[in-house]
Amino acid sequence: MSRVDEPRFFVPETAASRPFAPGLVTLVGAGPGDPELLTMKAMRAMAQARLVLYDHLVSPDILALLPHRAKRVYVGKESGHHSMSQEAIIERMVSLAQSGHSLLRLKGGDPHIFGRGGEEAQALAAAGVPFVVIPGISAAQAASAATGIPLTHRDHACSLVLTTGHLRAGPDGGRSAGLDWAQLARPRQTVVVYMGLAALPEISQQLIAHGLAGDTPAALIENASLPAQRCVRGTLATLPRLAQEAEVRSPALLVIGTVVTLHDALREALAAGLARARQA
Amino acid sequence: MSRVDEPRFFVPETAASRPFAPGLVTLVGAGPGDPELLTMKAMRAMAQARLVLYDHLVSPDILALLPHRAKRVYVGKESGHHSMSQEAIIERMVSLAQSGHSLLRLKGGDPHIFGRGGEEAQALAAAGVPFVVIPGISAAQAASAATGIPLTHRDHACSLVLTTGHLRAGPDGGRSAGLDWAQLARPRQTVVVYMGLAALPEISQQLIAHGLAGDTPAALIENASLPAQRCVRGTLATLPRLAQEAEVRSPALLVIGTVVTLHDALREALAAGLARARQA
Repeated sequence: MSRVDEPRFFVPETAASRPFAPGLVTLVGAGPGDPELLTMKAMRAMAQARLVLYDHLVSPDILALLPHRAKRVYVGKESGHHSMSQEAIIERMVSLAQSGHSLLRLKGGDPHIFGRGGEEAQALAAAGVPFVVIPGISAAQAASAATGIPLTHRDHACSLVLTTGHLRAGPDGGRSAGLDWAQLARPRQTVVVYMGLAALPEISQQLIAHGLAGDTPAALIENASLPAQRCVRGTLATLPRLAQEAEVRSPALLVIGTVVTLHDALREALAAGLARARQA
Repeated sequence: MSRVDEPRFFVPETAASRPFAPGLVTLVGAGPGDPELLTMKAMRAMAQARLVLYDHLVSPDILALLPHRAKRVYVGKESGHHSMSQEAIIERMVSLAQSGHSLLRLKGGDPHIFGRGGEEAQALAAAGVPFVVIPGISAAQAASAATGIPLTHRDHACSLVLTTGHLRAGPDGGRSAGLDWAQLARPRQTVVVYMGLAALPEISQQLIAHGLAGDTPAALIENASLPAQRCVRGTLATLPRLAQEAEVRSPALLVIGTVVTLHDALREALAAGLARARQA
């Protein structure tokens, strides 16, 4: 496992046999962290991998499934301390592929849902590098399955909105989630905010200002699908305080909407089911 | 395989050994149809199954992975001719579980994204039946991976809206998708409409009436992830006609937003990648 540039990767290992054929890049969604939530297709691609570029959110249990011979290169981005910029990752991928290396690009969740897979695919295509995409279980799906909060439900939500609460610098120099508040405040939908923890106070305040009731049910799910998973359940108005009291940490997913009330009705039967499934 | 009521399933097979213990219900997302897109967890649950209630959208290739001994009960709903109402399915599940049968409820896609898993879980919990949920790759994810249309992208869409275009009877006796048009017509988002084919003319007309440009890129993806997959690419204004000309059939997924333009830029490198991956 390596966090530094390793120039030897830039030397084409099969230059003699196929001097101009670029390698194949496989963009793989590794899901939320539980290796059991990998798809068969992702497992197969991982088993064949020789060179893997992986992100911060790919869990150690998943990396452990890579074959021993596979070279692992960490290119992860943690909020605040990027180990490699997105541009540098893309440059590296293109350069490796163009020098004949096939590689597996392993990302948390689904590459095409807040995974920047589209940007990487664009750069690869522009450079004439062939690629494929393997979808993965996104955090919203894992959190939903693990907490008993359905993302859609005829009595509650006919639409599901996925968005991201990553803070950006605003025009006034401050940092803001800069979301489409009017859209998110509409009724009869479920809103899931990826990376919504830091912006939670702003999200709560803005959605209430834009018309959502303060008592709209909301929940934060920390470490969805992992043994350390926690679910903090409250309302738009109370959740910022509850999250602080519970010391919720990233990665955490914010779910807003009346579907969250089902957590209360379902948690007991779900806990019993999980206990039973573990015995099986 | 059976499409009719089989009263023998109602006779508890282990009534003597555990007279009051209800069975475990495992709600499983079978994904979009390609068996390779099943999760490891779903595969494992399927391998252990003795009794399976499955839906219309679960592909024959996936059913073929069930163990020979597993009893298969078709409870699918096709638009127009329901073989069993949702209420009857729920009643059947509860009744089987209460008489001691553990069962696997196999659904296309993800149980908690337009899969009515929440309603089934509610009924199970109310009846004291333990359950677990295994998420699955949803059609939007499969279509996105297979066509090179990312669902989010910094330059195009910071939100993803999933909704359903299933036609409902309106107050005037006509049938309409009855969607939140103002929400769906907002800029800088990707809109995916499940079961959006029948309502496509109405969706096109309403979104243009609510402010989206007629030349907003849009695509229909038929049979996402399956060998028969097709992608019809057009604009909000042209897609209804193109869909008719191409004789697109259900299941088809409608994707609206400027991310669709990436299909044009990426399709060649993606096709080359898919060809290469098949050789591997």
